[in-house]
Formats: sequence, structure tokens, C-alpha cells
Amino acid sequence: MSVTAPAGFEAAGVVAGLKSTGEPDLAVIVNRGPLKVGAAVFTSNRAKANPIIWSQQAVSDGVVEAIVLNSGGANCFTGSFGFQTTHQTAEKTAALLGVGAGDVLVCSTGLIGTGDEVFRAKVLQGVEDAVVALSDDGGDAAAAAIMTTDSVAKTSVVTGDGWSIGGIAKGAGMLAPGLATMLVVLTTDAVLDATAADAQLRAATRVSFDRLDSDGCMSTNDQVTLLVSGASGVAPDAAAFGAAIVAVCDDLASQLQHDAEGASHDITIRVVHAASEDDAVEVGRSVARNNLFKAAVFGGDANWGRVLAAIGTTEAEFDPYDVDVWMNGVRVCTAGGPDRPREDVDLTPRATDLVIDLKVGGAEATIRTNDLTHDYVHENSAYSS
Amino acid sequence: MSVTAPAGFEAAGVVAGLKSTGEPDLAVIVNRGPLKVGAAVFTSNRAKANPIIWSQQAVSDGVVEAIVLNSGGANCFTGSFGFQTTHQTAEKTAALLGVGAGDVLVCSTGLIGTGDEVFRAKVLQGVEDAVVALSDDGGDAAAAAIMTTDSVAKTSVVTGDGWSIGGIAKGAGMLAPGLATMLVVLTTDAVLDATAADAQLRAATRVSFDRLDSDGCMSTNDQVTLLVSGASGVAPDAAAFGAAIVAVCDDLASQLQHDAEGASHDITIRVVHAASEDDAVEVGRSVARNNLFKAAVFGGDANWGRVLAAIGTTEAEFDPYDVDVWMNGVRVCTAGGPDRPREDVDLTPRATDLVIDLKVGGAEATIRTNDLTHDYVHENSAYSS
Repeated sequence: MSVTAPAGFEAAGVVAGLKSTGEPDLAVIVNRGPLKVGAAVFTSNRAKANPIIWSQQAVSDGVVEAIVLNSGGANCFTGSFGFQTTHQTAEKTAALLGVGAGDVLVCSTGLIGTGDEVFRAKVLQGVEDAVVALSDDGGDAAAAAIMTTDSVAKTSVVTGDGWSIGGIAKGAGMLAPGLATMLVVLTTDAVLDATAADAQLRAATRVSFDRLDSDGCMSTNDQVTLLVSGASGVAPDAAAFGAAIVAVCDDLASQLQHDAEGASHDITIRVVHAASEDDAVEVGRSVARNNLFKAAVFGGDANWGRVLAAIGTTEAEFDPYDVDVWMNGVRVCTAGGPDRPREDVDLTPRATDLVIDLKVGGAEATIRTNDLTHDYVHENSAYSS
Repeated sequence: MSVTAPAGFEAAGVVAGLKSTGEPDLAVIVNRGPLKVGAAVFTSNRAKANPIIWSQQAVSDGVVEAIVLNSGGANCFTGSFGFQTTHQTAEKTAALLGVGAGDVLVCSTGLIGTGDEVFRAKVLQGVEDAVVALSDDGGDAAAAAIMTTDSVAKTSVVTGDGWSIGGIAKGAGMLAPGLATMLVVLTTDAVLDATAADAQLRAATRVSFDRLDSDGCMSTNDQVTLLVSGASGVAPDAAAFGAAIVAVCDDLASQLQHDAEGASHDITIRVVHAASEDDAVEVGRSVARNNLFKAAVFGGDANWGRVLAAIGTTEAEFDPYDVDVWMNGVRVCTAGGPDRPREDVDLTPRATDLVIDLKVGGAEATIRTNDLTHDYVHENSAYSS
């Protein structure tokens, strides 16, 4: 059910012909209200796709009636023609729904530079088909239609006290935060105003999607959107809603990590006893972006030296010669030297736990990443994406 | 001849038994003067190997009599025992040469965490053997002894007006500047004082080794050292010497790039019309560290969208929608959109030229990198290094 689990939403996923495989590639999600509140966070990449430029403007008043998402083409660096395609997509959707075009968000994903006249015609026809197909159990069809190199659709639902939050996500490569690095739509029937929706979304993405860094590459198209229908009539406790939206985001981020292109290990990097949360994030991210460490994990080698070499490039507060490193429960480095033999670490499970104890403070953060594998290289060299 | 091409130097490379292959793994280079000037630049990684900590102190007075280099063990994160090993290495060398231990530099390379009592004993015996083997044509033996995963020894010589500069280098993985990221020794018989030697070395490394970024990973052990004998008796023109030392460094950097672990393409990223040289370097480096772009080059795909996505993460001054991208002479992107078809780009040659025209100023810089290949993953996952 995903985004249609909360009351007040309809969704559809259809085949617009954008994907060469003939699989579903266009989704529409409509907020039937009574509230029409929306909030979104966007990639911080300066190279932004046309849908990002459009949606940033459209969401700025906090009112969103619907969102259109397509896979099979990023509509990024496609010039003014591409921007007009996004504009027409919103206008067509709005006309069919009887709402204003400025209240329709657009998301695209696929190959950069793709967005010609054929693309535009297929998207506009897809919008027509999707609006006809809208239903209050269309969430999973929408989740399927936004997949690119994903091997499975990602959905999540968390239920609160009289309200719920649903979500869909796509993203398998180019996962690095800044924020977003993926397409995500969250829906809720809880009662929130635009200010609260924005604050809740930013707080949740900061500790979930923003800490997923699969391959260090930041996308041009990524957007996380929250739509609020208020259809439950229940104004939730802010803390309870905050915990629930974090849970949904965390669940989806975990699914994205687990399905990252070519990965054979899901690496959880927990940095503890940092002087600040920012320090913990910086240290974790430096390891998440170290190709040598990630290749070693793929090879089953608990190469803690590469961890130290990575964190030594940061400006975080710690003494490089007084750091403990644990891999899958084995302390392999302590006090500037080796501890238990690296051979004692069993790296055969997919789930890999790295703990870095900086020994200076009380803050911590967890960064998720993946290993660097032959399949990653294959997927990103043999196919254009 | 390399480091023994200039007058006033002796060198040796011997088998100390540190490498399991039985190949040469310890080198000594001695400056016979009359000048005993030395300068060095070091990795900026905060996680520094014991030899780095030692050498930074030893070179600070500008006087260097000799340098000892070993492969087969990094002596990094080996605790106070490891530091004592470095100290004893310098003392033993000094005693055999009849000089002060504080004028002997030490470099090590190999697996982090390696440096036990067996390692120490082998290094000390190797120093004895190397001092006996010193000769004025030992430069190439020294070059061979510092190789790790290098497939070939790297040497270079440039001759000036009555003086010359020679050099050796090693480094095949973990190549990212900060500075150094490799072991390099340069020698010259020109007459320079310590201040001039330091300034010339820093200026040259800044535009050569510091712009080689093969895999984004900064090492814990890297050091570039310049030894000045003054044996030619010629005080060179500063500009002429500057051009010569840049030529030697550039030649060695090119050899390092060409021999980078698992690489199938040498990618030269030239960023032109930048607002500043710093901007050009930042933009070039962002592409050099983008796994998706590097995998695309491996796959023969002129994926310019990944270039734009990479440079969009920088803070350099330019308009992402008014950038030209050329690959191997073909302009594939202009003015925020596609230009000539990516299929027109022939990426079969190993040498790959990427030009990014930022169209805002008069500055430029060139960054060297490699593609991301199956062999890179293999070499860094199947073996500990």
C-alpha cells in the first residue's frame, strides 16, 4: 500500500514507454486532502535537473496537490526544451485534476541528457494514462514505476495513534547525500501545517537518507517529498510523529543500501565518543568514501589500516594514535597499534559492522555504505545510467 | 642512474627479506656533498607513519646526510616499538656512515600495522648490507627496492646547464595528494641553500604530484625528498632549476599514473577558463574522485552527465548550465545540453583527454587520474596492502 496506506491519497503507476524494457515508468500520486500540505528536500548539487528547478519553486508555498515521477530519463541538461517538458508535465497533470500547475511537483530519474520530443510525448501520454488509473491502493504500482536499476521496489508504512505514514523510494546507484540522492515520496494522513511538515521532513532526512553514502556520487535529480492530507483528522504529538517519520525514512534508507548497485556487503559505520555529531558524521563519511577500505571488505580483509588512513584525512577532533576500531565485534586496532589479528574477523556475512571509537566525547553517528565490488564496476561501466 | 646521475650521490638497493617475494626491499641514498642540504614534503594525513614523524623532525634544520627507504612494511600504527624501529634505523645508518642520526631520513611503505621485531631485525640488517653496497651508480637498484605493487621502477633525469636533477618514485595505489601519496627521492648537484631547496620542492610538487589523484585515497607514509649535494659547483638560475624540477616531478607523476593499480585508462582532466587556479583544481579533483565517471570511462562510455554531476558538487565559480565538456576532442556537452553524440567519442586509447571549459576566467589546471576497473577492485580486495 505504501503511499496509499494513509487516508486521502490516490496513486497509479503506468507504462509510458520511457524504459526500453517496457516496464512501468511513470507514477502519479494525488493528495485528495482535506489538507494539501507539501514539503520537500532536494539534492544540493548545483547541477540540477529541470524537475528539481521546477519543484523547488512549486513547493515553496507549502501547497502540493500532486506529484508526477518518471523513470527512464533524467531530463537533466536538456536545455530550455527540457524545462518546458517539465512545465507541460505539471500543466497537463493539473488540468486533468482540476488544480493549479504550480501545485504539482515533478521528479525524473534516468540518464542525464535524455529528454527529447519523443520523451516529452511519452511523458504527457503517461500522465493521461496514470490519472485515469488513479486508485486508493495504487501505492505499490507507483513504487514499481519509479524503479531504475533497483532490483526490488521499496515501500514502507508506519502506523501511529490514529494516523499513519507511508513511503516509496527508488535509488540503487549514485547514492550520496547532500541531501537526498534518491527519489522518495512520503505521505501522511496526520494533521500538520506546512511549517511542521517541513521541519519534520528535514529532521528525519538529516539522520537517515543524508547518512546513506553508497558510492560517494551525488545525483542531479534527487528529491524527498512529504505530502500531508490530514484525512485522519488527528493532530499527532510532534515527538511521536518525528519518531515515526524517522522510522519510515530509516527503513527506506536501509532498503536502498541493501539494493545498492553491485554491493555484496552492507557496511554500517558507527562512530562513537566523538566530540560532536558533525565530527562523527565527517569521520564516518570519510570511511564510506574510501575505495581501498571498501574493496578490502569485498575481499573479506579486515584492513583496519585503511580505516585509519581514511579518518586521518578529516578535521574531526581525535588523536589518531588513540582510536579503537572494531569490525564485526573484533577489536582490531587500539592505542595506535594492532590489537586482535585481522584474520579473527569474519567478513562473510553481508551485514558488516564497523565501530570507530574516537575516545574524546559523547556524540555519535551512523553512516551506511556498501563495499566496492566487481559488480559495481560492471553495472556502472557496461550500461549508461 | 636516476638519483645517482647528479654528482655527489651514492645509492644501493638490497634484499632485506621484508617482501615475501624475495625481491629487493631496502634502499639507502647518501649525499657525499659538499653540501648536505635536504628538503621534504609529507603526507597531510593526520594518521602518519613512524618514519614520517621521524623525518619531519630530522629535515627541519635543512641538513640531510642520507635517506633509508624500505618496502614490505609501512611501520604505521605500530606503537612506540615501531617508532623505536625507525629511530634505530636512522642511528644504525648514521653510525655506519659516521654522521648524526638526526641527519638521516627514513621512509617506509607497505601494509599498515606491519613492524614487529622480525621486521626491525631485517631492516637493521638490510641497512648494514646496503651501506656496504653503496655505489655511484646504485640509483636504479634503489628505485627497484622501493617498489610495492608497482610493475616497473620509476626513474627520471633532467640535465641543466652544468647540473642535473635525478629522481626515483614508487606508488601504484593509494595515490591521492595531500601532498605526497608516494615515495619520491630527488637529487641534484646544483648549488642550492636549504631555503631555496624547500621553496623549489614545494612549488614543483604543488603542480605535479599534488595533482595526481588516482583513487582518492590519501596515504599515511608518503614523502617527497630533495637532496642537494652542490657537487657541480654551479648555482643555477632559479627559473631554469624550477622548470627542471617540475619536469622531473611531472615525468615521475606521469609514470605513477601510467602504472596505477588496475587502471586501463590514464585520464587527463584539463579545466580551463576557471576564475582561479584553485577553482580549476577543485573542479578537476571532483571528477577525478567520481567513481561513476571513472567506471564509465572503463566501459568506453563518454558519460558527460556524470562529469556535470561531479562538478556540480563543488563551490567553484561557474554556471553549470554554461559549461562545455570535451572528451578526446569531441564536444559532448555545451550550454546546459548535449552537443555531439557520445557515441562519437573513441575511448579505446589508454590516454583519455577530458576538457572542462568553465567559461568564466583565465585560470586553468590539469589533474591526472585513472579509470575504475575490475582489476582495481581485484588488486585491492584480493591482496592486503
